[in-house]
Amino acid sequence: MEPRLLVTLTTDFGYKDPFVGIMKGVILTINPAVRIVDITHDISPQNISEAVFALEMSFRSFPHNTIHLAVVDPGVGSERRPLLVVTDNHYFIGPDNGIFSGVYAVSERLEVYHLTANHYFLPERSATFHGRDVFAPVAAWFSKGIDVLKFGDRISDYVTIPLPVVKPMENNIVEGEVVHIDRFGNLMTNIDIQKIKPISGNYMDNNLKVVIKGMEAPLRKYYAEGEDNKLYSLINSFGYLELFINRGSSSANFGISAGEKVQVLLQ
Amino acid sequence: MEPRLLVTLTTDFGYKDPFVGIMKGVILTINPAVRIVDITHDISPQNISEAVFALEMSFRSFPHNTIHLAVVDPGVGSERRPLLVVTDNHYFIGPDNGIFSGVYAVSERLEVYHLTANHYFLPERSATFHGRDVFAPVAAWFSKGIDVLKFGDRISDYVTIPLPVVKPMENNIVEGEVVHIDRFGNLMTNIDIQKIKPISGNYMDNNLKVVIKGMEAPLRKYYAEGEDNKLYSLINSFGYLELFINRGSSSANFGISAGEKVQVLLQ
Amino acid sequence: MEPRLLVTLTTDFGYKDPFVGIMKGVILTINPAVRIVDITHDISPQNISEAVFALEMSFRSFPHNTIHLAVVDPGVGSERRPLLVVTDNHYFIGPDNGIFSGVYAVSERLEVYHLTANHYFLPERSATFHGRDVFAPVAAWFSKGIDVLKFGDRISDYVTIPLPVVKPMENNIVEGEVVHIDRFGNLMTNIDIQKIKPISGNYMDNNLKVVIKGMEAPLRKYYAEGEDNKLYSLINSFGYLELFINRGSSSANFGISAGEKVQVLLQ
Repeated sequence: MEPRLLVTLTTDFGYKDPFVGIMKGVILTINPAVRIVDITHDISPQNISEAVFALEMSFRSFPHNTIHLAVVDPGVGSERRPLLVVTDNHYFIGPDNGIFSGVYAVSERLEVYHLTANHYFLPERSATFHGRDVFAPVAAWFSKGIDVLKFGDRISDYVTIPLPVVKPMENNIVEGEVVHIDRFGNLMTNIDIQKIKPISGNYMDNNLKVVIKGMEAPLRKYYAEGEDNKLYSLINSFGYLELFINRGSSSANFGISAGEKVQVLLQ
Repeated sequence: MEPRLLVTLTTDFGYKDPFVGIMKGVILTINPAVRIVDITHDISPQNISEAVFALEMSFRSFPHNTIHLAVVDPGVGSERRPLLVVTDNHYFIGPDNGIFSGVYAVSERLEVYHLTANHYFLPERSATFHGRDVFAPVAAWFSKGIDVLKFGDRISDYVTIPLPVVKPMENNIVEGEVVHIDRFGNLMTNIDIQKIKPISGNYMDNNLKVVIKGMEAPLRKYYAEGEDNKLYSLINSFGYLELFINRGSSSANFGISAGEKVQVLLQ
Repeated sequence: MEPRLLVTLTTDFGYKDPFVGIMKGVILTINPAVRIVDITHDISPQNISEAVFALEMSFRSFPHNTIHLAVVDPGVGSERRPLLVVTDNHYFIGPDNGIFSGVYAVSERLEVYHLTANHYFLPERSATFHGRDVFAPVAAWFSKGIDVLKFGDRISDYVTIPLPVVKPMENNIVEGEVVHIDRFGNLMTNIDIQKIKPISGNYMDNNLKVVIKGMEAPLRKYYAEGEDNKLYSLINSFGYLELFINRGSSSANFGISAGEKVQVLLQ
């Protein structure tokens, strides 16, 4: 049995209530040796898409065999299934509501198990807090190296949610959208460099035009290259096109929210 | 000596200032082997009742012998005593201002010690930050397994604060109140299922009526059973009556704050 | 090689995005044995001065040989240098933008190294997230005990930023300013007790007058000594003059922000 010594947590439980601490208490009661790392607990309430994005951005930065526990779970208590997902190098535990859609999309190896072995759950299971009663104890038992097959049956009809897609090039235009606004007000899009490269080769050659809400956002290499209060774009650290104002919030300054369309034009 | 290898933290220090990090630094300087878990640091400033509630909800989910350090301490520097509390399976360290009232109310074994052995404090003690100077170092020394009797003298006149009580049934009505509003805007009350059971037997038999601000909140089993924008109630994962809107904030939608009365009627 | 088993994190990355979790994943991939403690991630975006203050308040409370990783980095991707700083008992890793100015000011031993050994960076380095690509991996490798000289060359032209200074006494008046407003709305100043002592000997002898915005703030020993809604001052747990309202926010009540001047008068 290989040990799995790291558990990450991604939830919409926030930082004010004791819910996250409670989950950690449950995990450490079962396996005191495991390490726990918070990814974020500030996913907007019930916003599964935000959690998809947070997981997809972060899971690769953790060691192989990390267990990623994700609980954004508006369907808690209903018939929605609890899952254990095995990918190339990582494990995922959470509800079957599409929260792992980003993981499904990028994983070569993919096995999805319906958690049914309820002796790995807490003995008394509530209808409203499966983070404590189901997912935390399963993560803790699984971290001890117990075989995945002991936790439930493999399924293939797991839920996926549609992720924003980039419209393929037409008339030399690629259209994507803002999928995340970060703490700094930067606008992260779903347009990745591979979509841009076929157009321009080197994206800094100035033969690309990035447009949002009718405004052009000239390409720069890093934030500090931008003049104050002007909108620019760059390829961010995850490989995606991102719009920004140097030392300012492009979201607040221009009133741009997630979902806003972004065009890349070959000039 | 039994080791006590886990320390939880509950404070009103927030996440912006370095106060919590400083406490962790003090603890790890004295005992590098101890594990530290945050319950919450977002207790409203000086709000002892919120801390009572957070502790009471969470402490049982931690392993036996966990040390729960709680610092909401408006009387810091005054004559208020620092305490070490021993209960059936858990330890508590913090100021004598009622912050452990919920723990006192539910513990069979209960020994309360006035922390006087100041060689377990930091050598220089300020009048404004006993989280750093008194409570963190005591928790760290105590986590090494030192006998409780070495820290101070047992007392019986420790401070308790009144907790919201449920009015006993009269004319087939039980009245409690909203004691906590969680991150989702759900209204947690102090009415526990034992208070309801004598009325109805099975709470889903629909012979119960839950009323707040003149509105009825029909009972459901889990959140997703509720229609949008309508108020419902359920028995939450801590055994208490809770009012909710499915995927919405009942607190914001109906302008309900902690302290609002809730009636349960036998129809 | 001495082990360095504790890494602290101070950033402006906030708690909503997965950036901090990602940094922790990178660190634990390289050195699974290291302990990580958050100081704060709620530094205002790009506010280097706030980070200077948070570090200066907290680093001494951590064990010797702690590695303090600080990333408030508006110049990421530009020519600004990545640094490793060695002081008497602590190490610091972060950008060369003045973020360690407070540390420089108080350290007797001070060696500053320009991080150039890029085999300690991640293989692919972005232009926008050196917290993940440079600082986290360097901290993790350095935590394994690798000699500081292997990471880069010593420099002497590191950047410092001006810190608010106290105007020396003139006409029996010392003038400093509010440098930090904490979670409780207390006004922390840069006037330390050593500046006051030569005036009065014992600061509680009432021969000192503390004035802000034309209002007097009488000296007290601890918060609970103040009457409600009135402004007072005390010597805080870091040795500095601080203005406060008991159980209230002096910042909100009197509309006082960081930068406001504070006078101490010898009467």
